[in-house]
Amino acid sequence: MAHDKSPVAGNGLFDRRFFLKAGVAGSATLMSAAASPAERPAWMRAPGAPMSPSGEPSEHEAHVQRRPIGSHPGTTGTGAARTPLELLDGVITPSRLHFERHHSGIPAIDPDEHRLVIHGLVDRPLSFSLEALSRYQHVSRIQFLECTGNSGASIAPEPVQASCGAIHGLVSASEWGGVPLSVLLQEAGIKASGKWIIAAGADAAAMSRSVPVEKALDDAIVALYQNGERLRPSNGYPMRLFLPGWEGNMSVKWLRTLKVVDQPAMTKDETSKYSDLQADGVARLFTFPIGVKSVITSPSPGLTMGEAGIYQVSGIAWSGAGRIRRVEVSADGGKSWADAALDEHIMSKCLTRFRSAWRWDGSPAVILSRATDEAGNVQPTRDAVLEGRANGAFYHYNGIQAWRVGADGEISNVYA
Amino acid sequence: MAHDKSPVAGNGLFDRRFFLKAGVAGSATLMSAAASPAERPAWMRAPGAPMSPSGEPSEHEAHVQRRPIGSHPGTTGTGAARTPLELLDGVITPSRLHFERHHSGIPAIDPDEHRLVIHGLVDRPLSFSLEALSRYQHVSRIQFLECTGNSGASIAPEPVQASCGAIHGLVSASEWGGVPLSVLLQEAGIKASGKWIIAAGADAAAMSRSVPVEKALDDAIVALYQNGERLRPSNGYPMRLFLPGWEGNMSVKWLRTLKVVDQPAMTKDETSKYSDLQADGVARLFTFPIGVKSVITSPSPGLTMGEAGIYQVSGIAWSGAGRIRRVEVSADGGKSWADAALDEHIMSKCLTRFRSAWRWDGSPAVILSRATDEAGNVQPTRDAVLEGRANGAFYHYNGIQAWRVGADGEISNVYA
Repeated sequence: MAHDKSPVAGNGLFDRRFFLKAGVAGSATLMSAAASPAERPAWMRAPGAPMSPSGEPSEHEAHVQRRPIGSHPGTTGTGAARTPLELLDGVITPSRLHFERHHSGIPAIDPDEHRLVIHGLVDRPLSFSLEALSRYQHVSRIQFLECTGNSGASIAPEPVQASCGAIHGLVSASEWGGVPLSVLLQEAGIKASGKWIIAAGADAAAMSRSVPVEKALDDAIVALYQNGERLRPSNGYPMRLFLPGWEGNMSVKWLRTLKVVDQPAMTKDETSKYSDLQADGVARLFTFPIGVKSVITSPSPGLTMGEAGIYQVSGIAWSGAGRIRRVEVSADGGKSWADAALDEHIMSKCLTRFRSAWRWDGSPAVILSRATDEAGNVQPTRDAVLEGRANGAFYHYNGIQAWRVGADGEISNVYA
Repeated sequence: MAHDKSPVAGNGLFDRRFFLKAGVAGSATLMSAAASPAERPAWMRAPGAPMSPSGEPSEHEAHVQRRPIGSHPGTTGTGAARTPLELLDGVITPSRLHFERHHSGIPAIDPDEHRLVIHGLVDRPLSFSLEALSRYQHVSRIQFLECTGNSGASIAPEPVQASCGAIHGLVSASEWGGVPLSVLLQEAGIKASGKWIIAAGADAAAMSRSVPVEKALDDAIVALYQNGERLRPSNGYPMRLFLPGWEGNMSVKWLRTLKVVDQPAMTKDETSKYSDLQADGVARLFTFPIGVKSVITSPSPGLTMGEAGIYQVSGIAWSGAGRIRRVEVSADGGKSWADAALDEHIMSKCLTRFRSAWRWDGSPAVILSRATDEAGNVQPTRDAVLEGRANGAFYHYNGIQAWRVGADGEISNVYA
């Protein structure tokens, strides 16, 4: 079918308003007798299923699951399960599909027995039950959470052939609701010497991280709700710390103690892990905010292109520095770029969904995305991220991801 | 505990920034030996549960379910299940808890067999498979959906004693994603005589509604995704119409046909139902946009207050006319009002979460909320809504809801 719009970037990438003006994907078919509304399908000939207390996904979507990978041999509950990004759209992650990363499994906490204690360099050490926290005025925000080790496979010498979710699925977004930590700290009264807070979980690993007081008093919350309902156990039930825009490991799940101290604790979880060894032998510690990042989720490995023609190219972008301002997409390996359309709910420290229209001519092509945040940070290339790093240093990876679309419609991971 | 802030409205309602300034709910306890972090609970003494493909809710939250009520005797699948609003926070409704309302149950649709047909007064009748629709550029928005019959119990002569969700739980909010209907209609080509579109579902009732072409070309979408994943069967899998801000029944689930016509079809679903009989015997038809509305979800019937003291009063507000601009809360039966705080993600045609701080003195009190939208519409009283209506006319109810807090901490439904 004809359309009057020409591509704005190489290899068939259109203006972000292409569909609003030209409208045609060319994938519809003229109505045929077989599709006539007069022919009612089997499922219209008898009443359907009744109402239920819980609306579950279709049996045809049973493959849409988290991917547990990387469990450590000989342990239970140590590892991660990743969000299948390539099967999702929008920015909200269904809570059942939110990624999980545990250091000693999911504790079976009795919510009536659990207490959050604030102690250390405070005027009044306090203990909060879930009921006590429920009486404070809450706040909710829609924000991303990304594990520090996400996309770490991208440091491999040869591109790992795996799905988008398997490589980048340690990022998700939810509406997180709870009590501003500043309010609780104000009630306890931080002494002048209190500069850091050691947050520890009620898991068997007592996972612990040191948090600067400034962040705790800024936008940190003690989260009780995720996507409208109580947290699920794999995301910290009954309460977790949530530090918007900062590396996920610091948002300590099953939050049990907040100890105000005068210096960072140098816990095993911030020294043996989540630090960045440089080529000169020095480890960078405390890289807290998540760098600006994006990835194309469709098309991506495991999905298959049909015939040549118009396709949506869609993905997610995010930054710990605030809002996403711009996402560019390339279909010629980075030689030229076109601005993508952004869904209208662009929120601070949240995933932002981007979309472009692309006329695939059926020949091999390399597609990429590049995000810019409101602070002006531009997503770096893989080479720029790895510059100066020691071999094997995989934390804090936010390089540009390239996918190759083959002539057979199969998609693979490439370095470009 | 002391705080330096005085109430700004009668019976102990504080300024919306109370907690940011004064901080104290008075519900925390000084840390005791029993709560000492040195005493590790049982669940910290052994590794916890492993990773899983799906993160389910805690067993302690098993009561957080939809409430199937109102099924018609002798039928299967005719009725509704409501969202338990009083157990939720924030604005996103978990998809399993999104309300459902069916006229002949949930059809078991094979997504590969299903087609959407656009026909009638068009230049090119078209048929779309799910795969074909997936190639168009999508758009996602976070918006509410409210059944036309929601809150209908409020017309009863005496206040119905039921939970907030049982009375008002035919409203939910999700991120809805799919293809702008305008793009598909542009491709089919609406003839000059085409003014209305009959949307029909693939359920056994072939639920049908007439939609003005103007709305279809404005912000309507054919939705494929809800909260990031494919629609669930009880919300229209594999595709539904979604008309932002308009009465829910028009967002036809399991969307099968869109027939462009020159006048409304006067289907059974827009004449025998979803119309408003007036006291003068005339029925008002086609009341499409949802009126401005709010309800306090906590405290509300079924929840119980503890001792006298500071409490959060929280609820949701929404309007089919756009964004919520203001929500006021009263704790003295409507004699005086205080502005509530609004969570920062205030989106057009979406639920908005409001919160106030209230010092309950332990004596009986009547609490209410009143919403104003960006068009200046103010939520009406119950009397104003019922003025001029025939007995039994329960659709399109958006009156102010009052809850009575008893001296025993129990909450009940009252007319005030």
